[in-house]
Amino acid sequence: MLRWLTAGESHGPALVAVLEGLPAGVQVTSKDIQAALARRRLGYGRGARMAFEQDELEIVGGLRHGSTLGSPIALRIGNSEWPKWEQVMAADPVDADILDGLKRNAPLTRPRPGHADLAGMQKYGFDEARPILERASARETAARVALGEIAAQFIQQTTGATIVSHVVELGTVRAPAGVIPSHGDVEALDADPVRCFDPETSAAMVAEIDQAHKDGDTLGGVVEVVVEGLPPGLGSHTHWDKRLDGRLAAALMGIQAIKGVELGDGFELARTRGSLAHDEIVPTADGIRRVSGRSGGTEGGMTTGEILRVRAAMKPIATVPRALRTVDVETGEEARANHQRSDVCAVPAAGIVAEAMVALVVADAILEKFAGDAVEETRRNVEGYLTNLRHR
Amino acid sequence: MLRWLTAGESHGPALVAVLEGLPAGVQVTSKDIQAALARRRLGYGRGARMAFEQDELEIVGGLRHGSTLGSPIALRIGNSEWPKWEQVMAADPVDADILDGLKRNAPLTRPRPGHADLAGMQKYGFDEARPILERASARETAARVALGEIAAQFIQQTTGATIVSHVVELGTVRAPAGVIPSHGDVEALDADPVRCFDPETSAAMVAEIDQAHKDGDTLGGVVEVVVEGLPPGLGSHTHWDKRLDGRLAAALMGIQAIKGVELGDGFELARTRGSLAHDEIVPTADGIRRVSGRSGGTEGGMTTGEILRVRAAMKPIATVPRALRTVDVETGEEARANHQRSDVCAVPAAGIVAEAMVALVVADAILEKFAGDAVEETRRNVEGYLTNLRHR
Amino acid sequence: MLRWLTAGESHGPALVAVLEGLPAGVQVTSKDIQAALARRRLGYGRGARMAFEQDELEIVGGLRHGSTLGSPIALRIGNSEWPKWEQVMAADPVDADILDGLKRNAPLTRPRPGHADLAGMQKYGFDEARPILERASARETAARVALGEIAAQFIQQTTGATIVSHVVELGTVRAPAGVIPSHGDVEALDADPVRCFDPETSAAMVAEIDQAHKDGDTLGGVVEVVVEGLPPGLGSHTHWDKRLDGRLAAALMGIQAIKGVELGDGFELARTRGSLAHDEIVPTADGIRRVSGRSGGTEGGMTTGEILRVRAAMKPIATVPRALRTVDVETGEEARANHQRSDVCAVPAAGIVAEAMVALVVADAILEKFAGDAVEETRRNVEGYLTNLRHR
Amino acid sequence: MLRWLTAGESHGPALVAVLEGLPAGVQVTSKDIQAALARRRLGYGRGARMAFEQDELEIVGGLRHGSTLGSPIALRIGNSEWPKWEQVMAADPVDADILDGLKRNAPLTRPRPGHADLAGMQKYGFDEARPILERASARETAARVALGEIAAQFIQQTTGATIVSHVVELGTVRAPAGVIPSHGDVEALDADPVRCFDPETSAAMVAEIDQAHKDGDTLGGVVEVVVEGLPPGLGSHTHWDKRLDGRLAAALMGIQAIKGVELGDGFELARTRGSLAHDEIVPTADGIRRVSGRSGGTEGGMTTGEILRVRAAMKPIATVPRALRTVDVETGEEARANHQRSDVCAVPAAGIVAEAMVALVVADAILEKFAGDAVEETRRNVEGYLTNLRHR
Repeated sequence: MLRWLTAGESHGPALVAVLEGLPAGVQVTSKDIQAALARRRLGYGRGARMAFEQDELEIVGGLRHGSTLGSPIALRIGNSEWPKWEQVMAADPVDADILDGLKRNAPLTRPRPGHADLAGMQKYGFDEARPILERASARETAARVALGEIAAQFIQQTTGATIVSHVVELGTVRAPAGVIPSHGDVEALDADPVRCFDPETSAAMVAEIDQAHKDGDTLGGVVEVVVEGLPPGLGSHTHWDKRLDGRLAAALMGIQAIKGVELGDGFELARTRGSLAHDEIVPTADGIRRVSGRSGGTEGGMTTGEILRVRAAMKPIATVPRALRTVDVETGEEARANHQRSDVCAVPAAGIVAEAMVALVVADAILEKFAGDAVEETRRNVEGYLTNLRHR
Repeated sequence: MLRWLTAGESHGPALVAVLEGLPAGVQVTSKDIQAALARRRLGYGRGARMAFEQDELEIVGGLRHGSTLGSPIALRIGNSEWPKWEQVMAADPVDADILDGLKRNAPLTRPRPGHADLAGMQKYGFDEARPILERASARETAARVALGEIAAQFIQQTTGATIVSHVVELGTVRAPAGVIPSHGDVEALDADPVRCFDPETSAAMVAEIDQAHKDGDTLGGVVEVVVEGLPPGLGSHTHWDKRLDGRLAAALMGIQAIKGVELGDGFELARTRGSLAHDEIVPTADGIRRVSGRSGGTEGGMTTGEILRVRAAMKPIATVPRALRTVDVETGEEARANHQRSDVCAVPAAGIVAEAMVALVVADAILEKFAGDAVEETRRNVEGYLTNLRHR
Repeated sequence: MLRWLTAGESHGPALVAVLEGLPAGVQVTSKDIQAALARRRLGYGRGARMAFEQDELEIVGGLRHGSTLGSPIALRIGNSEWPKWEQVMAADPVDADILDGLKRNAPLTRPRPGHADLAGMQKYGFDEARPILERASARETAARVALGEIAAQFIQQTTGATIVSHVVELGTVRAPAGVIPSHGDVEALDADPVRCFDPETSAAMVAEIDQAHKDGDTLGGVVEVVVEGLPPGLGSHTHWDKRLDGRLAAALMGIQAIKGVELGDGFELARTRGSLAHDEIVPTADGIRRVSGRSGGTEGGMTTGEILRVRAAMKPIATVPRALRTVDVETGEEARANHQRSDVCAVPAAGIVAEAMVALVVADAILEKFAGDAVEETRRNVEGYLTNLRHR
Repeated sequence: MLRWLTAGESHGPALVAVLEGLPAGVQVTSKDIQAALARRRLGYGRGARMAFEQDELEIVGGLRHGSTLGSPIALRIGNSEWPKWEQVMAADPVDADILDGLKRNAPLTRPRPGHADLAGMQKYGFDEARPILERASARETAARVALGEIAAQFIQQTTGATIVSHVVELGTVRAPAGVIPSHGDVEALDADPVRCFDPETSAAMVAEIDQAHKDGDTLGGVVEVVVEGLPPGLGSHTHWDKRLDGRLAAALMGIQAIKGVELGDGFELARTRGSLAHDEIVPTADGIRRVSGRSGGTEGGMTTGEILRVRAAMKPIATVPRALRTVDVETGEEARANHQRSDVCAVPAAGIVAEAMVALVVADAILEKFAGDAVEETRRNVEGYLTNLRHR
């Protein structure tokens, strides 16, 4: 139901994001979106770029007076560093004389391991990495976060459900299992330097970052996204690509540097015996409930109405200060990969991006099940369904 | 590029699979597809159903004289047990009198934890689980395996690449890291009772299954799929949903009972420092190569030309002999979930299904990059690309 | 929302059709579908094939006891002529000796003008036309008609809307403008030899067919599909590919031999002045209504709630008894196109196929606007929307 | 293969267009795109808006130094009238006090016949037409024209094919049949006041516009798009939605005010006998050719390699000076539709939009058949295919 495209290069004039398919009447402002963009810049262990770059937001279409129109929503997120790159990244041809004099324009012929550089150059037929890394860069995730905020507002305004994320592993430090934040904890989490819900673990994570920084190294980690308040029946068991699990996995694995995804207890579940691995069903005063959340809130590829919980594993940042071996494609000789500035760790920010991707998938699943061209219509359809459920 | 749909209920007359978008000239026979279907029935720890059900294959369209026509391919996989279910699962109305007398037709009002039963009943508005479990059943994977075989033939005939899978974890038993089978090992793997590449581990896995069987319990595990021989540049960094990692994750997480997916070292990579986590690039007599395969053969969401390696974590079978708690939706009272016959462990077979899903994703990515309406045309386009790569 | 694929060759064992995305609870039986298939065989001017071929229907999945399950629906429409073609069209390899002896297997090296033959051979790399014409044949439309019947039932059961078609032009004979049948006229239309709503015109059309038959020639014509009872707001003005007009056009122009499509008065509207070309809006006891139907029941790409009316122009049958010039691709020499048996005119049947295509598009648009996983849920959502409309 | 979205309201700050899926290396500049946008403003009979509005183009992403990067292309087409609308169309909430004082902000409660107004208000739940007409307006076609220019460059740079359009009917005036312009005629056509290829007809069309203007009325017409130089085999007969005819029909019928589409001789073909309706095939020194172009250059839904020719019928402009009847939805009383300024006729401009839509469809079909991540790769694949064709 939802279609969305992002565009824009890391050092281009701006990112653009277009989201097609949301109903009319979603209440959202540029302030909300800017707040979401600011959250993406959070986290101990980020380099200087986060500080000196700004996200200049323009809502170009799809909203009027704080409310969506039902038409495609378009955002432009300006790059405050653009003046420095105006010639190097110009859309139109630039005089060779001018370009030759620019150090920033020097061809990047030593593709960096762990990045899209080499495979991208081979695929698209480029002699240097600039045209690849400009798009592969994680800056693009700002566009996703902006759209994710709109999706999250839609979710909350139609179902009441809320989304939160936290860091559960960072390097070798792991948060205690089973402690799951809810929406009320967002402020506290955002205030934590690593967005970890357990203060002691947080301190250990900060120490791990400090040590890695000292060692000229980088760290990865694992984030968990939690959605509370969804109706049962989002996604479907009827066809492989309608299963919510797979759609969430695609969305999270489609984030830069994510190499693993799990629903609920995921890989641990594979190591658990069947008698202990499933969520038993019981009658309660509140209706039929599960007594545990091992499956992450889906069964048969559908939400159960319990908490949705999904994790993503991020590999350590690939631009390692201690330069890795590569090849200079101009000479064919062994070389060391360029190292520019870099963060030690981007895991806290990855949680914000993961929230956005989950929001976009869940919003899509809500529209698939409930449709509606106005928030009011979607809400009425949700309520009709839930009321009917309560009757059984 | 590829579109495919499967249909059919577990106890219906047949499964149907349609695959649209393959070029003409793929050489494949019903014998090949039947062999693939037989592989899906492999594995120590399966229950009786695997033995008494047969897969009766009819190729209904898209092939002529052992070669695809470029038109949609349609398969019908008959269910040999159909005569027992002809009335219970009849497409057309059946006299209430007749149905009432059939034990098999009794409404299943106690949804089983860990299955699609309850969420499916809520979503689709059913009072019992039969209409849900018939489609949610893993029998549907036979349709995927059949199509996966055709996709695998296409891959091999256009790029030379081959696919193999093995079991790397089963319950608490884990195979030694870093031992990766290749296509030549398929026969040996299929002969192993648990499709594990390490004989000692295999014996331990068999023992684990025996113990679980004794204890009336079930087991999960982890399978790994390995693709060797792919060109660099399948998938793309340019948009989140073109990244091959995400497409593989969706495909694997879209298999029944899969709750985790990782590319290469996945979650372990998140715990490794950056200096040790990436695959360095070196010049060799064979051209530019990576010295390791930690990333699983993708960078920036594209194949690197190295071995593609992806893992899926399967939760233990949910139909646990020791019945789990549930609710009888007819009465609203607590109850015990029905236990019919069950396997102890389906992990070895999951590897075959995972191979099929990977084949379908990779075939799609090949068509996306190389197109072609005849195998010969696709192959020519692949060769043109690779020749051009060698020139740089 | 709806996905559907058809497969199967004209002389293969069967056609297969799979429809994914309909909710549970649509009431439909094999008798309904067989009746629809029989309607496709109607019409004066058809050749012998319509008489000797039978459509053997098997519902393979997606239905139980006369009601859809929410899972993909699969149909198999067997070809009663298959025994004659078992070797020529075998999916698996057949001994060259056997094939060489079969006259039916002789390569068709003289591509017929007006058919897919030549372009298809060039595209898919074949040396003869058999692999192309087997799929390009209009027999494939049986699969569409079968699915269209299910879609039409869904439409009627959720919105009450009904579909009918009639022939408005045949060769040079044209029915009087402005006479539009409704659902109650279906029986009478089906009883008319050319499915024309005006008896005098019908007689003239029959005479035109007789004359063309005498002259060894073929005829085309124009059919009109009418849908009555749809809610306003299906389709959308917000993006080009959501406009219902375009989706209807694609569906109708995607039928074999259709070369023109118009909504409402279509091309005539282009020749009318603006003051006379639009449908004025007036308040009535029944609510807000249009006083005319020139636009065909859509404005801005959305249904208005008035009668939806769309036309398709079918070129004359291309297998002309008076053989057309072509090239023998084996020799490169000029030749005459093979003429086998042929119909004089297939326009009456085209109306049935057009109904099916319109039904599939409209069903999709209903699901897009109202969703629902059970007919009851879709209906509730429709009613909620309409009730709310009445309040304004 | 290609995905594209447009966004933006008619009186919003800008339109946005994103095009995903083009290979790297397409040569195109902002000058090219601006020239295309200027062509959309051509045509006798346009109102004042065409003169006072400017299209301020920013290429936001996907291009560097005049060449595409393989990443999504994003354009922003600024609205020079924005300062007048900054508050009325503000994305963020505006003080009620301020809005109340603005005449431009007055609710439009009299939906105009022939526009999306009423159906859109009903669908999206609005009490006035502003939120609908802002998006339904034909200004949105500027975004399509901009993307179409890029698609046309891709087509020419990979296949050499070129696109041109002309007006073949305007009101009741019709150009002589069979006169088809080619790419070399573009300049002359653009210089003609109504973009008609026949000077005498052009004069008659201008006179018809003058008369309509005098009468306070509006006119529609028919445009024809011609593509020369395409390879055979774009599109496919194998599935209804792969037929190029249907995809072209959807694209053209998805343009504002288009109510009819035909390929080649279209509706006339339906009135022609079979012996005269098809394009005979002959051997020539240039290879196998058709002797006529009645089918419009497709057979079986595939290009034949001959000239592709498609027509679109545009209804007269719906904002008729002589106001039409409608209902004031606030009072429920009969009323007259608002008439603001308006053009008499937009048919010449519709040809430019139609060219763009055809370019986008054809570019997509080229990528589907030939793929390629760099223009050079696509071109190599095209050449490999054509070379192989010549050999037969």
